[in-house]
Amino acid sequence: MNLTHLDENNRPKMVDVGDKDITTREAVASGVIEVSQEAYDMAMSNDNKKGSVIQTAIIAGIMGAKQTSNLIPMCHPLMLNSIKTDLEELPELPGFKLTIKVRLDGKTGVEMEALTGVSVGLLTIYDMLKAIDKSMVIRDVQLEAKSGGKNGDFRR
Amino acid sequence: MNLTHLDENNRPKMVDVGDKDITTREAVASGVIEVSQEAYDMAMSNDNKKGSVIQTAIIAGIMGAKQTSNLIPMCHPLMLNSIKTDLEELPELPGFKLTIKVRLDGKTGVEMEALTGVSVGLLTIYDMLKAIDKSMVIRDVQLEAKSGGKNGDFRR
Amino acid sequence: MNLTHLDENNRPKMVDVGDKDITTREAVASGVIEVSQEAYDMAMSNDNKKGSVIQTAIIAGIMGAKQTSNLIPMCHPLMLNSIKTDLEELPELPGFKLTIKVRLDGKTGVEMEALTGVSVGLLTIYDMLKAIDKSMVIRDVQLEAKSGGKNGDFRR
Amino acid sequence: MNLTHLDENNRPKMVDVGDKDITTREAVASGVIEVSQEAYDMAMSNDNKKGSVIQTAIIAGIMGAKQTSNLIPMCHPLMLNSIKTDLEELPELPGFKLTIKVRLDGKTGVEMEALTGVSVGLLTIYDMLKAIDKSMVIRDVQLEAKSGGKNGDFRR
Amino acid sequence: MNLTHLDENNRPKMVDVGDKDITTREAVASGVIEVSQEAYDMAMSNDNKKGSVIQTAIIAGIMGAKQTSNLIPMCHPLMLNSIKTDLEELPELPGFKLTIKVRLDGKTGVEMEALTGVSVGLLTIYDMLKAIDKSMVIRDVQLEAKSGGKNGDFRR
Amino acid sequence: MNLTHLDENNRPKMVDVGDKDITTREAVASGVIEVSQEAYDMAMSNDNKKGSVIQTAIIAGIMGAKQTSNLIPMCHPLMLNSIKTDLEELPELPGFKLTIKVRLDGKTGVEMEALTGVSVGLLTIYDMLKAIDKSMVIRDVQLEAKSGGKNGDFRR
Repeated sequence: MNLTHLDENNRPKMVDVGDKDITTREAVASGVIEVSQEAYDMAMSNDNKKGSVIQTAIIAGIMGAKQTSNLIPMCHPLMLNSIKTDLEELPELPGFKLTIKVRLDGKTGVEMEALTGVSVGLLTIYDMLKAIDKSMVIRDVQLEAKSGGKNGDFRR
Repeated sequence: MNLTHLDENNRPKMVDVGDKDITTREAVASGVIEVSQEAYDMAMSNDNKKGSVIQTAIIAGIMGAKQTSNLIPMCHPLMLNSIKTDLEELPELPGFKLTIKVRLDGKTGVEMEALTGVSVGLLTIYDMLKAIDKSMVIRDVQLEAKSGGKNGDFRR
Repeated sequence: MNLTHLDENNRPKMVDVGDKDITTREAVASGVIEVSQEAYDMAMSNDNKKGSVIQTAIIAGIMGAKQTSNLIPMCHPLMLNSIKTDLEELPELPGFKLTIKVRLDGKTGVEMEALTGVSVGLLTIYDMLKAIDKSMVIRDVQLEAKSGGKNGDFRR
Repeated sequence: MNLTHLDENNRPKMVDVGDKDITTREAVASGVIEVSQEAYDMAMSNDNKKGSVIQTAIIAGIMGAKQTSNLIPMCHPLMLNSIKTDLEELPELPGFKLTIKVRLDGKTGVEMEALTGVSVGLLTIYDMLKAIDKSMVIRDVQLEAKSGGKNGDFRR
Repeated sequence: MNLTHLDENNRPKMVDVGDKDITTREAVASGVIEVSQEAYDMAMSNDNKKGSVIQTAIIAGIMGAKQTSNLIPMCHPLMLNSIKTDLEELPELPGFKLTIKVRLDGKTGVEMEALTGVSVGLLTIYDMLKAIDKSMVIRDVQLEAKSGGKNGDFRR
Repeated sequence: MNLTHLDENNRPKMVDVGDKDITTREAVASGVIEVSQEAYDMAMSNDNKKGSVIQTAIIAGIMGAKQTSNLIPMCHPLMLNSIKTDLEELPELPGFKLTIKVRLDGKTGVEMEALTGVSVGLLTIYDMLKAIDKSMVIRDVQLEAKSGGKNGDFRR
């Protein structure tokens, strides 16, 4: 086994997926942002505020997932079939958990799209709340599940 | 105190920085990716491989920091003075720590640029190593320090 | 019938087109910019001027259509087959009418690509003439026709 | 008076603003989308739906305004100070009116940024409602007011 | 024979590739940058420096190839299968030769992607070395070979 | 003297320009595309064709110059004051010479913007004529002159 994005001189390449089958592929990624009680309470203090913070994060996550091949140097440009998000309130942390599921019919997986979307969405929550709290931490950005393709499914 | 990116109807806005002073502002952010022993060993198995993985992550981090205002909906477009990175090998985790320092002379801070650069750089390491290990986790993406501007300095 | 870009919690999603058939789809959109007599005469005052204004608008419209999925949050990235424009002089308005036809073989329609191209093209005419006239108005940006896909054809 | 974006051969150029003063400049643009009663009722049928449609349009408008210099060929890249939106429900049309105000301290005006933001925001409403109604029309995209700079203020 | 990117009025269009077959297409382009002896020696003075200059150029070339349809007005957005580079040291020129090979399964060729990648990669070398030498020259950016599609293969 | 875009570990960085003065800076770059007699004649065969080819190249060059910091990894985002082009017909080569002059008031030079604009403009001519001739060559992409900044002027 080797690093697929390195060529025979160990220099970066965008790996050839030409011989792979077009199959339905899906990836789910998630991540958490831990915020102060004050920032959490502010974001939750009324429905409109909460709505704005959450919607901005969701939209940024979806748009960010579409930018993956422009951001991650060796990622292939892909025609995604769908991007779906779930933003969970975590009052006990306190914080938020963002989950993004991406699907395509194509020759390569969409893990990076899901992970990039999660990262951009969580960064957006940071941006929306940073006037209250600069010590927020993004953590546990990880692949939850992946299916499709010949390498078999993955489930954390 | 309120959420600066919401207007009087609690809808998103790009906050007005027109009255703020142009000062030298700096932000330092960091984050960690935890990888399997196998993935770490593969990345470290020879100097060229290591170099490619690390350089790709550093370049992606720098280019990602420059994309911040295109990714984070309420971020201002900014003319950054400098972007500097540090990529530390963590053999005991095992994993890598990426630190990015951004500077500008301007009217608003560069926390989001530093945090976005770190996220994109760590996602790139994930991408480079994901053929070996899909269970890698990005964690502790956080602001380390911030200076400049009237709100005072921040140090974690 | 429901809003396809909202999920079960009424939050934005990029709707799943995975089960739709790949068919040839076409959309035609148009729009008008109404300008002052002085601005119209200036743009028409010689062939080179007219050519520059019109070419810049056409090229911007085509390039803008290709940016649709980066601009409209829930739009899918698509591999367009063709983009064709028509720019009609309207001496009696006075003004210009821009029509854009987009085609693809794919799983979702290209209305938004045609409409976005028209908007960007007309905004470009505004930009080219705004030193003469700031009161120009863009109007009647609308879908003219659409074919392909299971929802049936549309013709205004 | 001439077309500022054409050179002595009547070919496009990005006009030189080097000799202009850095002043606070502001532009306000607006536009309307006329939708069917059915589409309007669907968008208004509950608070969450309405919130999602409106927030997506607002966020797209703000992000679109930031893309102006990438879309309109002769526009200068600018460091905007603020972007503020107002989305008004028009139950009698029925439809929606989007207004965007942009500010910067710089050497050139921000009309195009305000107009582009309005166009992208209204296109986004079209996209969110197009499963219900394909005959929606975007109209009256126009500059409302402009101040700053030596050419004097403009008010429609 | 005519210019495929012009319509019946000789205005630009994105040519319709809808009737073309999906085949495996490949293009190889190359180009050279000629640098001063001093700049060449500096770039080669130690392995880390050389590695950084070369890796940055390679990564920029790959990322640039992916931006082709955003840069070249009439280029189609494409889902590339692979991008592979070769960067050759030319001690006698002195200078560097960059070769990029692009592949896709699609309806139109990838010459422009290969040529754009080469140009961006060579410009990046210029940028990395320009503190030493501003008189460097990029030359011989050209298509080396092309295969796939009904127009027959090309080999320089 | 050293490579300004490498840090103390010889890894890429975006060099700090914070201490440099804001001055008026200008750069002029040029490049040539050599085409076959057949391609040249086709492009020149009537005024509209010639106009379309040349305008598309000029507009692409201007828009490409604005994308420099997104393409060249270590380039700073800049607020350009002006971009001006000259496209010269070279009937004896045959071919075309594109010259681009860029100006800004800022802390770093605009050589890369001028060179990138020239490259994108020439690539666009290649794209417009490639149905006739695939053996065209881009050459002599080089800096012609540079002024402003403490390092002194450059003139080829």
